[in-house]
Amino acid sequence: MTKHLNPIFNLDQFERKPRFINGFYKRDILSVEQFSQEDLNYVFSRADEMMAMVEKWGTCDLLKGYTLACVFYEPSTRTSSSFIAAMERLGGKVIPITEGIQYSSVSKGESLIDSMITIEQYCDVIVLRHPQIGSSAMAAKHVNVPIINAGDGAGEHPTQALLDLFTIKNELGCINGLRVAMVGDLRYGRTVHSLTQLLSQYDVSLRFVSPDTLRLPMELMNMLIDKGIDVRESHKIEDVIETADVLYVTRIQKERFPDITQYEEVKNYFVVDEELLKRAKEKMIVMHPLPRISEIDYRVDKDPRAAYFRQVQNGLYIRMALLAAVLGQA
Amino acid sequence: MTKHLNPIFNLDQFERKPRFINGFYKRDILSVEQFSQEDLNYVFSRADEMMAMVEKWGTCDLLKGYTLACVFYEPSTRTSSSFIAAMERLGGKVIPITEGIQYSSVSKGESLIDSMITIEQYCDVIVLRHPQIGSSAMAAKHVNVPIINAGDGAGEHPTQALLDLFTIKNELGCINGLRVAMVGDLRYGRTVHSLTQLLSQYDVSLRFVSPDTLRLPMELMNMLIDKGIDVRESHKIEDVIETADVLYVTRIQKERFPDITQYEEVKNYFVVDEELLKRAKEKMIVMHPLPRISEIDYRVDKDPRAAYFRQVQNGLYIRMALLAAVLGQA
Amino acid sequence: MTKHLNPIFNLDQFERKPRFINGFYKRDILSVEQFSQEDLNYVFSRADEMMAMVEKWGTCDLLKGYTLACVFYEPSTRTSSSFIAAMERLGGKVIPITEGIQYSSVSKGESLIDSMITIEQYCDVIVLRHPQIGSSAMAAKHVNVPIINAGDGAGEHPTQALLDLFTIKNELGCINGLRVAMVGDLRYGRTVHSLTQLLSQYDVSLRFVSPDTLRLPMELMNMLIDKGIDVRESHKIEDVIETADVLYVTRIQKERFPDITQYEEVKNYFVVDEELLKRAKEKMIVMHPLPRISEIDYRVDKDPRAAYFRQVQNGLYIRMALLAAVLGQA
Repeated sequence: MTKHLNPIFNLDQFERKPRFINGFYKRDILSVEQFSQEDLNYVFSRADEMMAMVEKWGTCDLLKGYTLACVFYEPSTRTSSSFIAAMERLGGKVIPITEGIQYSSVSKGESLIDSMITIEQYCDVIVLRHPQIGSSAMAAKHVNVPIINAGDGAGEHPTQALLDLFTIKNELGCINGLRVAMVGDLRYGRTVHSLTQLLSQYDVSLRFVSPDTLRLPMELMNMLIDKGIDVRESHKIEDVIETADVLYVTRIQKERFPDITQYEEVKNYFVVDEELLKRAKEKMIVMHPLPRISEIDYRVDKDPRAAYFRQVQNGLYIRMALLAAVLGQA
Repeated sequence: MTKHLNPIFNLDQFERKPRFINGFYKRDILSVEQFSQEDLNYVFSRADEMMAMVEKWGTCDLLKGYTLACVFYEPSTRTSSSFIAAMERLGGKVIPITEGIQYSSVSKGESLIDSMITIEQYCDVIVLRHPQIGSSAMAAKHVNVPIINAGDGAGEHPTQALLDLFTIKNELGCINGLRVAMVGDLRYGRTVHSLTQLLSQYDVSLRFVSPDTLRLPMELMNMLIDKGIDVRESHKIEDVIETADVLYVTRIQKERFPDITQYEEVKNYFVVDEELLKRAKEKMIVMHPLPRISEIDYRVDKDPRAAYFRQVQNGLYIRMALLAAVLGQA
Repeated sequence: MTKHLNPIFNLDQFERKPRFINGFYKRDILSVEQFSQEDLNYVFSRADEMMAMVEKWGTCDLLKGYTLACVFYEPSTRTSSSFIAAMERLGGKVIPITEGIQYSSVSKGESLIDSMITIEQYCDVIVLRHPQIGSSAMAAKHVNVPIINAGDGAGEHPTQALLDLFTIKNELGCINGLRVAMVGDLRYGRTVHSLTQLLSQYDVSLRFVSPDTLRLPMELMNMLIDKGIDVRESHKIEDVIETADVLYVTRIQKERFPDITQYEEVKNYFVVDEELLKRAKEKMIVMHPLPRISEIDYRVDKDPRAAYFRQVQNGLYIRMALLAAVLGQA
């Protein structure tokens, strides 16, 4: 039976190989700090191609032969389903490792590193969400396959920042020369910090609208001033609505306020509605990392300037571009 | 690096297009009420083709290029795995959104509609299970991709009713002229109500067997009488077993009885066993929406008239037919 | 509309058929006891082919047309993701049935057998993990598709034992003539028992290192002696480290000790570190079923003799070989 066994495969036929060997091939995606303008242009033009492909074909076989392990140590339906859709639309396979992660190996005392090295044995790339700051960078040191950081606690969520910037470019045609207003919780909002960092590479004006208790951290503000970026802060959207090209709105969480009456006082300054948008430019966009609570009135959804759902879709294209790039296929 | 970028795709090659543009293309599947006899015939003959395909090939590439988001706000392993298998056997991709849905966006206060519009950005069709009556219809108003209702609380579960009717037709060759007996909890049983509604389009006799406290609701009974359907009610299976072509059995839940002794009194009237089936026709079928508890004795499983597991398989074919139809591929 | 319906498929084209009809085709994989040396050689040489395929292609279409239901009644990220990766790399489809299994049908009182027969309607092979001893064998009696036991409580976990033996053969070139030392919890460790059973088919020397309270069960020891295997027991790794070709290390759980001071006394005898390995052969391997806690020092990971992560990867190839074999494709 074992002698002269008929082989299953004819392995001469074909070999899986990288098609594009550039700065992204086998690289980890850990932080927005690693992206130069040239890198951003590269990823954005690949994302454009992904958009065109999805519209025409829906899916393709670009990542046939590759497997993604999508490892989520905390639930984030939004981000995990975006990565799963991205990999599947590229013809790759997905091993979702979400549920049960807290019950099984971890509860037996296994370290994150051991888990990552174990998972690496099955796959070609890992997307990692973990509540601990620096977790993705630590994992990247110990495994050989590329790690894409899908959020490391209070740390970074680089693909979110990339999709935000891609949305601005895509909707308005360029980044230089724009006035971008960030609104809401600028202190704790991870997405605001990362996007601000990316924007600081460009010739933009930035406006920061928040309550006193939720202002942009000093370090970020100093960095912007050092770079000579035109920055101003304000308490009310009214101050920025007329000149903003981008209104980037975030959730203000009640829990951030030591005193609920403080929250009640300020919350209405940070709500975007139809009335407010009457005073905005005709060519501008409203963005939001979602989920929203009541920061943007539902009636705004029909306004063509409401870009937040297109922003979600852009996340798909950016993630497709990154997955393909780190695997040498874009 | 970004200039003269080698394109990844040659998008001239092919375009994803609907092959069949009929009444199902881009249509939501929300309720059995939307199905005419012609519609039912169409879906059933497509389901026949699916059955033949699965037997011969197992899977195919009919829905290559399409992605299903399978969104379950309450667990239903049975229904979700049937839809996942259906989409996968058709060569489509699946984004399962189940676990964690309660912890992540929803707990951040996101509305169902925002979640649905977000998920829509990644996919071509959505299957939705949600505990709230009318949820699928509401979602369908706000999203552009087709929604298939996989159960909206006390509302409807249309694919279950379609697979029930398909099973009857498939097992017995026709629907007109049959005597169908429904047994058990006819008051709360969603599947009984929907199947009854579908059957009322045909020339059938209906027999309803239940305890007094679980009789078919008056509105449904009046509707049947208005349509001139031959209906009778009874307390015991014995009254219908000899003439029934279809015995459709459902769970009777103890919790429905205010007094446990009432339950003990009646429960034995609603158990199907080998002894009972000796008095049934040779060509008849026993159906059950499953899971069963003790309504059908395990020894009945070997009787060729036990159709309840074939019924499960028919669910696969019906769901394949519907997915393909709403995407214009059947 | 229903007359002269254009058919969707041309079913003449092709038929899904077994390519290899041998002892594995349609067979359940329930226990290591069912594997003869000839069987093991067969599976191992198929696993070798899988390894070569994965390295060159990543994935293939060998199981195109086939669907696996991966049913886990208790979480085991490690095992389930290995099976999912295995099926996906072979081009098959996977229906993961994990989350929610405890809430939905089961909580409605459904029996394991009914669940298995239901799931069988959608798929071609079932992988089952269930906490109850004998559950897979019981399921196998009632369903027609092959069942692969992925752990039945204190019972068996045959694919783990196969991947362990495959690792030994793969790393050291043969099995006969080796000295294998098992270290740690030899009383409760399911993997130790199964691997011991497989090894007893070969001409090996076995060394068992454990605290008194965690010695190999008498029945196993007697079986080995009856077969004339060279066996010895010991309290310290030091006694075996110099001559072992394989050091198979397992977790020792504090909870196994009635008195914590007993644990503290012995635990250091069962830790593998760089210092210890200096005394080991140059050509030997350290194995561990993982997850580890502190039995193997992290610095050992870089030693080429540390085989435990390659062991994980071998699990992928063994599971690919078995899935393909029971479906008649290997």
